[in-house]
Amino acid sequence: MTTKSSGLAGVVAGTTSVCTVGKEGVGLTYRGYTIEDLAANATFEEVAYLLIHDSLPNRSELEHFKQMLKAKREIPEKLRSILKLIPKHTHPMDVLRTGCSALGVFEPENEENNQYDIAARLLATFPGMLMFWYQFHFNNKEIDTHTDHDSIAGHFLHMLTGQAPDELHERALDVSLILYAEHEFNASTFAARVTAATLADFYSAVTSAIGTLRGPLHGGANEAAMALISMFSSPEEAEAGIKQMLADKALIMGFGHRVYKHSDPRSPIIKKWAKKLARTEQDQRLVAIAEIIEKIMWDEKKLFPNLDFYSALAYHFSGVPTDMFTPVFVMSRISGWAAHIMEQRANNKLIRPTAEYIGVETQTFIPLDERN
Amino acid sequence: MTTKSSGLAGVVAGTTSVCTVGKEGVGLTYRGYTIEDLAANATFEEVAYLLIHDSLPNRSELEHFKQMLKAKREIPEKLRSILKLIPKHTHPMDVLRTGCSALGVFEPENEENNQYDIAARLLATFPGMLMFWYQFHFNNKEIDTHTDHDSIAGHFLHMLTGQAPDELHERALDVSLILYAEHEFNASTFAARVTAATLADFYSAVTSAIGTLRGPLHGGANEAAMALISMFSSPEEAEAGIKQMLADKALIMGFGHRVYKHSDPRSPIIKKWAKKLARTEQDQRLVAIAEIIEKIMWDEKKLFPNLDFYSALAYHFSGVPTDMFTPVFVMSRISGWAAHIMEQRANNKLIRPTAEYIGVETQTFIPLDERN
Repeated sequence: MTTKSSGLAGVVAGTTSVCTVGKEGVGLTYRGYTIEDLAANATFEEVAYLLIHDSLPNRSELEHFKQMLKAKREIPEKLRSILKLIPKHTHPMDVLRTGCSALGVFEPENEENNQYDIAARLLATFPGMLMFWYQFHFNNKEIDTHTDHDSIAGHFLHMLTGQAPDELHERALDVSLILYAEHEFNASTFAARVTAATLADFYSAVTSAIGTLRGPLHGGANEAAMALISMFSSPEEAEAGIKQMLADKALIMGFGHRVYKHSDPRSPIIKKWAKKLARTEQDQRLVAIAEIIEKIMWDEKKLFPNLDFYSALAYHFSGVPTDMFTPVFVMSRISGWAAHIMEQRANNKLIRPTAEYIGVETQTFIPLDERN
Repeated sequence: MTTKSSGLAGVVAGTTSVCTVGKEGVGLTYRGYTIEDLAANATFEEVAYLLIHDSLPNRSELEHFKQMLKAKREIPEKLRSILKLIPKHTHPMDVLRTGCSALGVFEPENEENNQYDIAARLLATFPGMLMFWYQFHFNNKEIDTHTDHDSIAGHFLHMLTGQAPDELHERALDVSLILYAEHEFNASTFAARVTAATLADFYSAVTSAIGTLRGPLHGGANEAAMALISMFSSPEEAEAGIKQMLADKALIMGFGHRVYKHSDPRSPIIKKWAKKLARTEQDQRLVAIAEIIEKIMWDEKKLFPNLDFYSALAYHFSGVPTDMFTPVFVMSRISGWAAHIMEQRANNKLIRPTAEYIGVETQTFIPLDERN
């Protein structure tokens, strides 16, 4: 089969039982459960278990899973040394990419450390990896990466601020981790599968995913959305500014989606949380600015906000620095990546497409001394 | 378009002007030059320049390129510290994956350090990165990663053995670097393009490629070929052994190819070099073993040796430890990866396929206390 395509849009690259994205009459489901149900009723740890182990945990399985994640929060001494060597003004995604690759060096995949162990270890350590680096370079502290919080959301917020988080912030972040956990063959997951399909180790596949998520056309979009919303000091200014950007054909991040054509089912959920978290007058103003941007994008371009747009506000109101938005995405999506790496391995075939050649025709070799 | 495919075999995922693989009547060409011409008449540095800059260099361009590569061989102090922290028995591909990611931390991509600078820097430093780590942990030496060798092949062999290499070994490795430099949308290059297509930085794309190349179904195949050939102490033993493996349906590495259907044009070139390098009686025996394996694979399965099979012997006879075979592939393929990352960026579109859902139907959410 030779089908030319552009960015493989609409091309079925394989099968999956992890999730549906925008399936007619179904919408977004993880292992058959709708995103609305999961966001309303589950915790992120339950969702991570569901993705990795294929069914919702009962109470004792969930308790065991959470205790195991808590027990795996230690950052190895040599990895702490590496995090100290990584400069302060590094892109935090480069910290996680390098940290993940380095953890694969210190705790390689083998018979005693299998894919389930590694998936749990990465779920457990990404928040600490990032926060150890951050607190060391920004606040001159070598933090303990153990906290008493059962939830990854609470654990992360505690290490970020140095104190137990507000319950509302913790649950907002928890819901956001659920929403970001999995999304079928998105670019980072697909990269993880391409890597896993050569039978490379688990860490290599996750490292590929982190590097891929880093780009502004993928994970970086929530940071870009925050930058956009922050550009304006009032809804009126935003209205004029966005119309000008549209006239200038500027790229406006946080809208539309490769797969969803009419709306992103995750957006109303996180928008509700963003509004719930907006407590100060300044917060309310940011919400009003975001809503006017949403309205103009719909009126003028029929583009809807995707998950990234209001997630930016939810994170901002929860005290997460903008630079950390994409790393938080990593802390969540590792659950989906893990599920896909395991699925790829269970029924593996090398992912190796072909290309249409549009280069020069065969030419005669010219010896060095005869070249112009 | 929704086309189900298996590993995207035969699916055109985009266009390229970097190379043709097995094109009818053309075979393997880099930027229009046949692999036979390049292997016979060019050096690896000329080929790397050709891939990255789109045309063969004239004498002064080549001289400048080689001098620049020599000048970029320094490993930053902090990266040396990280290489010292990476344990002795680490998979050397994990060393390069982590080293590449870390270099991206210390020398991030920006206006002063663009994609051409980074491509040259990675070409210049991969051999030193690997050899610094290797000599530190295996021979207790902190080596200088500068040598007088103009060629990457000579530079690498010098750091490996501590002395100026035999000319024949240097040229054999140089030719091998040419043969391994580029191969269209192979899995590692495709992974690099998937990563680059989110507009992630150059190092992220190369880090994905290294992790992808690490797998035994891709770059690891030359190491597996060496292990296979080394299993037997005579051609007779090999004949019986391979027939038994075929009867057992064991996976035999180094044969066949996703794209080539009848032969791999690189194989006869490297086979000639392997035979030229076989000087001792033991070497001759290994060649005889390899040739009987080649014959049986053809007679029984109509499978031909690919580049990896005789490359294993060529490297072995040149004194390259088996663990270093795939890292040597990285030192070469970085030139092709760089060309593809640049090509992807020049006409970018997010690479995001879709999946066929084969999972469970939508199910009703079950509250935690009602689960079995």
